[in-house]
Amino acid sequence: MKEILLKNIVVKGQENDILICGERIARICGQIEPGPETEVVNCHGMTAVPGFVNMHAHAGMSMFKGVGEDKVLHEWIDKVWKIEKNIDEEYVYVATKLSCVEMIKSGTTTFNDHYWHSPMAYKAAYELGLRATLSVVLCDNFDAGKARAQYDELLDVYRQSLGWDPRVKFAVGLHSVYSVDEKALLAGCEFARKHGLRIHMHLCETRKEVEDCKKAHGGLTPVEYVNELGMLGPDLICAHSLWLNEHDIELLGENHVNCVHNINSNLKLASGYKFLYNELRDAGANICLGTDGCGSSNNMDMLETMKTSAMVQKAWREDPTAMPLEELFDAATVNGAKALGIDAGQIREGALADINVVQTNNYAFLSPGSFLSNFVYSAHSNTIKHVICNGKFVMKDRRVMGQPEIEEEARVVLRKALKK
Amino acid sequence: MKEILLKNIVVKGQENDILICGERIARICGQIEPGPETEVVNCHGMTAVPGFVNMHAHAGMSMFKGVGEDKVLHEWIDKVWKIEKNIDEEYVYVATKLSCVEMIKSGTTTFNDHYWHSPMAYKAAYELGLRATLSVVLCDNFDAGKARAQYDELLDVYRQSLGWDPRVKFAVGLHSVYSVDEKALLAGCEFARKHGLRIHMHLCETRKEVEDCKKAHGGLTPVEYVNELGMLGPDLICAHSLWLNEHDIELLGENHVNCVHNINSNLKLASGYKFLYNELRDAGANICLGTDGCGSSNNMDMLETMKTSAMVQKAWREDPTAMPLEELFDAATVNGAKALGIDAGQIREGALADINVVQTNNYAFLSPGSFLSNFVYSAHSNTIKHVICNGKFVMKDRRVMGQPEIEEEARVVLRKALKK
Repeated sequence: MKEILLKNIVVKGQENDILICGERIARICGQIEPGPETEVVNCHGMTAVPGFVNMHAHAGMSMFKGVGEDKVLHEWIDKVWKIEKNIDEEYVYVATKLSCVEMIKSGTTTFNDHYWHSPMAYKAAYELGLRATLSVVLCDNFDAGKARAQYDELLDVYRQSLGWDPRVKFAVGLHSVYSVDEKALLAGCEFARKHGLRIHMHLCETRKEVEDCKKAHGGLTPVEYVNELGMLGPDLICAHSLWLNEHDIELLGENHVNCVHNINSNLKLASGYKFLYNELRDAGANICLGTDGCGSSNNMDMLETMKTSAMVQKAWREDPTAMPLEELFDAATVNGAKALGIDAGQIREGALADINVVQTNNYAFLSPGSFLSNFVYSAHSNTIKHVICNGKFVMKDRRVMGQPEIEEEARVVLRKALKK
Repeated sequence: MKEILLKNIVVKGQENDILICGERIARICGQIEPGPETEVVNCHGMTAVPGFVNMHAHAGMSMFKGVGEDKVLHEWIDKVWKIEKNIDEEYVYVATKLSCVEMIKSGTTTFNDHYWHSPMAYKAAYELGLRATLSVVLCDNFDAGKARAQYDELLDVYRQSLGWDPRVKFAVGLHSVYSVDEKALLAGCEFARKHGLRIHMHLCETRKEVEDCKKAHGGLTPVEYVNELGMLGPDLICAHSLWLNEHDIELLGENHVNCVHNINSNLKLASGYKFLYNELRDAGANICLGTDGCGSSNNMDMLETMKTSAMVQKAWREDPTAMPLEELFDAATVNGAKALGIDAGQIREGALADINVVQTNNYAFLSPGSFLSNFVYSAHSNTIKHVICNGKFVMKDRRVMGQPEIEEEARVVLRKALKK
């Protein structure tokens, strides 16, 4: 079994060695002797943190940056959906690889994706060495023919996914309450529960979504509506969860739903910013962070997401103590792992070896603030020197294997898509 | 005269050559032949943008990151002022050098500083090759003895500044209406105007500041109060300008005051976030951006400041078209140059050669969005490959001369300051 030994690396404030055997962290202690085959990496002046878990991504949108600049959400979606008609399997494969490069370079080792052509996303994530949960997205826009075709695709990709590397899981994607027929919501949900899959949907992203839902469903909010359908539970991952009333929070909390905050997307599209972090946490929801797709948030940097989430939370609550660092970091790591049911998100003996090695001997860390404070508020993700996922280096000395080739492939498929 | 030729660099969407002679941009056109002594730099796949102008900094606070984590502004100031008692000239010299390194690495070529021991800040800025405006800060806390000593220091450093390199200017710093006696405000202001210096002060940073001012000055807001003192004008630089009423905006606008928005500091300290960008702009104020000191905002990255400013503006106004890219970029460049009376902030023949060379052949720019959209919203400042200030490279291939030595000096003076 392949072994990696990270020598003299700081873990939770103490210098230690970390031994990785196969895909897991085998030992963390003072001095570990390497075996003859062990790859030894000197990590003096570096700190180990868990790889980030990006809980709401549309990795196939890596080349949609700036496409909907200065547009409101509903106009933006129209624009994006128009372009998406031109993209094919090859495009999604290459675009997802490009997202994987971007995620690796900013320390993300797991992403929870929601996009088209998921077998292509699988191929991309598998090749780049990342952990992922990928979904077939049901989004019928109330067209029964579309709904049938999408359900068939769900069955088909589910069957394929039984042969996937266990690093990548399959999930059921439901676009939203405003774009999926009730029958399809129920069918998708039933399918997920029968097969032990996660359900990944957008929920309460805009005020309009809530108002429209109330009109369409006898005064029920989106949360109340999906609750009526029996969908709430710890296997449900709700992207955004932004426009909530007290009853919604109670429902999300008591059902231990996973609520994913995507601050950059919410700010930039002006969807809203008063994410009810304290209330959801206290009610019992599992709070995670995500970047959303590059059409809305323009990058996939989880460190930036952490900083902006906490700063905006402090500001609108007029409370500089809101969203403290330890909780913020958990939201970007272990909470996401928990939501996806994977044994990662912590630097711990026995856990999956998803590790960011952060270079701390530079000005970003040259202050008496804590490591987390300096990492989140002062540094950028380019201080991440190595990234290990599933016990293997996916980035070493800031180099991701194949990056220039992937960027070149991306230019080619983008040109093709824009010509159509 | 030293010549630098940037070959095949994109300027405002077109590939061109830029010839720098001495401290200025001499020519921008299709193909320029280098002379025998010209330093030719291949800039294929790169774009030129003006160096950023950080309009509100406390560069001596580079090692104050995380010091006041989770504190409200008034508590935070107490904490900072306690530590500041332990710092000396050597500390400020080294700490300012460290800030210069950080600023250069993120593309800032000019900073407008507000801190103690400004002759030491001069030495630092001069050595690192940056353009700056440095002030002696009057902050007497209503102690007449302190006021006299500070005024004497102002006179002394002003005299010294007559021998400074013209790249660095001297200004009068006034801490705020709540920490400077009226006589000192008036004396500082008179001195500035007599000698053609800029005035740099904090104004309307917190709601408390406004309320306290009204109590102390017969219902006048800080803006109305300094207006009564005759201080408003295009030579006044007001950091924050956050808590304003309609009359304040009118006064700041008609007097063409420079208002500096420091979003990260405002968010993190929960001072407020509804900066009245549209209103101030429409009234006639000159709007600039700044990072504030590292005690509050934790880094000095103007690109991050741009992104957060625009995103938060869009969000609270519920208008994704707010603070459009071109205006945002002007606020970070040419508006600041205008405020300081320097002929920089634009890539233009005849202007001072303060230029960031941005590497664009990578995933951050691999989208059909505009260069500005990709630069501000997708990229990080580590895509800035070279930085030129006053016609000289201050960073080349991401290397700043002396960075490791400065970081080591910083560790030494920090240890000393913490031991006291």
